[in-house]
Amino acid sequence: MTISASYLKEFTQQVFEKMGCPAEQANEAAECLNQADLRGVDSHGVARLSGYIRLWEQKRLNATPNMRIVHETPSTAVLDGDLGLGLAVAPHAMRIAMEKARNVGSGWVAVKNSNHYGIAGFHAMMALEHDMIGISLTNASPLVSPTFSKSRFLGTNPIAVAIPAGKETPLVIDMATTTVANGKLEVLQRKGEEMPVGWAQDKDGQATTDPTVLKKGGSMLPLGGDRLHGGHKGYCLGAMVDIFSAVLSGANYGPWVPPFVAFLDPPANPVGDGIGHFLGAFRVDAFRPADEFKAHMDNWISTFRNAEVSDGQSRVLVPGDPEREMTAERLANGIPVQQAVIEDLKSLAQKFNLSFDPK
Amino acid sequence: MTISASYLKEFTQQVFEKMGCPAEQANEAAECLNQADLRGVDSHGVARLSGYIRLWEQKRLNATPNMRIVHETPSTAVLDGDLGLGLAVAPHAMRIAMEKARNVGSGWVAVKNSNHYGIAGFHAMMALEHDMIGISLTNASPLVSPTFSKSRFLGTNPIAVAIPAGKETPLVIDMATTTVANGKLEVLQRKGEEMPVGWAQDKDGQATTDPTVLKKGGSMLPLGGDRLHGGHKGYCLGAMVDIFSAVLSGANYGPWVPPFVAFLDPPANPVGDGIGHFLGAFRVDAFRPADEFKAHMDNWISTFRNAEVSDGQSRVLVPGDPEREMTAERLANGIPVQQAVIEDLKSLAQKFNLSFDPK
Repeated sequence: MTISASYLKEFTQQVFEKMGCPAEQANEAAECLNQADLRGVDSHGVARLSGYIRLWEQKRLNATPNMRIVHETPSTAVLDGDLGLGLAVAPHAMRIAMEKARNVGSGWVAVKNSNHYGIAGFHAMMALEHDMIGISLTNASPLVSPTFSKSRFLGTNPIAVAIPAGKETPLVIDMATTTVANGKLEVLQRKGEEMPVGWAQDKDGQATTDPTVLKKGGSMLPLGGDRLHGGHKGYCLGAMVDIFSAVLSGANYGPWVPPFVAFLDPPANPVGDGIGHFLGAFRVDAFRPADEFKAHMDNWISTFRNAEVSDGQSRVLVPGDPEREMTAERLANGIPVQQAVIEDLKSLAQKFNLSFDPK
Repeated sequence: MTISASYLKEFTQQVFEKMGCPAEQANEAAECLNQADLRGVDSHGVARLSGYIRLWEQKRLNATPNMRIVHETPSTAVLDGDLGLGLAVAPHAMRIAMEKARNVGSGWVAVKNSNHYGIAGFHAMMALEHDMIGISLTNASPLVSPTFSKSRFLGTNPIAVAIPAGKETPLVIDMATTTVANGKLEVLQRKGEEMPVGWAQDKDGQATTDPTVLKKGGSMLPLGGDRLHGGHKGYCLGAMVDIFSAVLSGANYGPWVPPFVAFLDPPANPVGDGIGHFLGAFRVDAFRPADEFKAHMDNWISTFRNAEVSDGQSRVLVPGDPEREMTAERLANGIPVQQAVIEDLKSLAQKFNLSFDPK
């Protein structure tokens, strides 16, 4: 069924509050999941709400974290998230980064001891209203193999960058460093269709078109796919995200990153605390006057949007266009929620003695 | 023929000095080209020397630049390269970034009014000996099309990141944001072989296996190739590099980036000055004690190097391994230089009244 964004946001916030989150964190976390649904990243929206609750029930998530800076310089900090909800830890880190940017031009906060932080773009976009460029990275449950390997050693490790513009809408990049997100394999499974080569490999590290391969010991491939198509570059990007998020902060990295799903135990002998994020902010006017920068961004954006279209295509997009258009559509018409997710939300309502009765 | 790295470096430095470069800049620029040859990036080494000379002869390159900071904060700066040799402008910018990192934890220098800066990795690697992470981006002559477009609007816009380790060798990423470098198409042309799909497209924006397609109005594809294989993510990365390098600094961006080759005129109505770079440095101990960080990097590197190998492959690499092994091999056995490049260097020797007589 289709549910209004505001109804889903309100319900999500109530669930987080029932879990014990302070109201402000519950609000921010609900907004982060809601934005994922609005932007069309259904895998990171309300569909994931019960997953956070299961982590909390297993005491792998702390509803009332005492977040604290454990190390800092004028432009950098390490934040200990105290196992808080990543959805609320990351915005807190981003605010610290922006405060540092206000003071010295840029700010960078590596976060340890956190959990899944939702869509990377949400945190990066916090910078936009302050005329700052926002950057957001996180590591994640290992599902991806390095080039030439069949070990699952990296997460889908996203990179998000949000860049303000003037009259044009801001440019927002939010991309996994894999060829595709895991959710795309699930769509093909449901349809019973084959998967393109270059998305994932089988348990022996060989090319496959079987979209169920992850359940059979296979792994996802870094952006590019195989070596011939530049997959080693995707591996480099995933490695960079892992190191910035976790080796700089003191979180778990590589195969030690704890899984999001509560039915899998975290790896034994952790090398750090929780999962790691990396948030950054540049003040635009730390480089040139903001008006000047934004006028040139407008020119950049309109130039690229007006690039010559390939034969057979209808238009050229600028990073962030599809998500913004999806947001407008879903704000107007509601968010389609699958029946399995509806059942999930009803269970949560029952568990927490809440009403879930969307029109 | 095969020529020793030291001979090539010495000759290159003499050429830059004859061009009028101050000795220190000539030395640094020669070192940058030499490192490209040693690392196996033959397209960015001594083969490119005569190209810089031609730019200088056309007065598009200033041998004695007055580089100056035109805007700064404690952690950021914009450097005007005064049309200097990018090979020397970028190291100067990197030193400013590192000085800022020393003071406030991180430093970021956007550069305008520069020229081709050689391999991105050279500048990023300057940070390593200072226990800093180095970052280096640059835009470049437009050869690459945005997803769904046939316009050449982006360069191969590389991303380099150098990360110190302890007992292990540092992790060095140096990658174009395209599927492959232009040089790989030239190799296939010489061999008369077909090109894999996903490397480049024809003038109508359609898939092709013709490696001569760039001469026929075609364009290179961003990392990932087509939309189905994530090419829009490579487009995002190329866009980010372009904006950080040129819109933050005030250089030319997108289709306005002046071409490296002297036989093509720079675009009319420039939107900025020269080409742009973006150099950054993080002090490792701005996040955690350097020894701790480096011990975890050693663990990261040895863990990934020991990942399970895919069937049919011999080993798993860590970013930077191939280039480091190539450097050791070429330091021992010399650098293979193609006959056309030898002739080029002989012409330069004649032009500048230098000796070129490698053994």
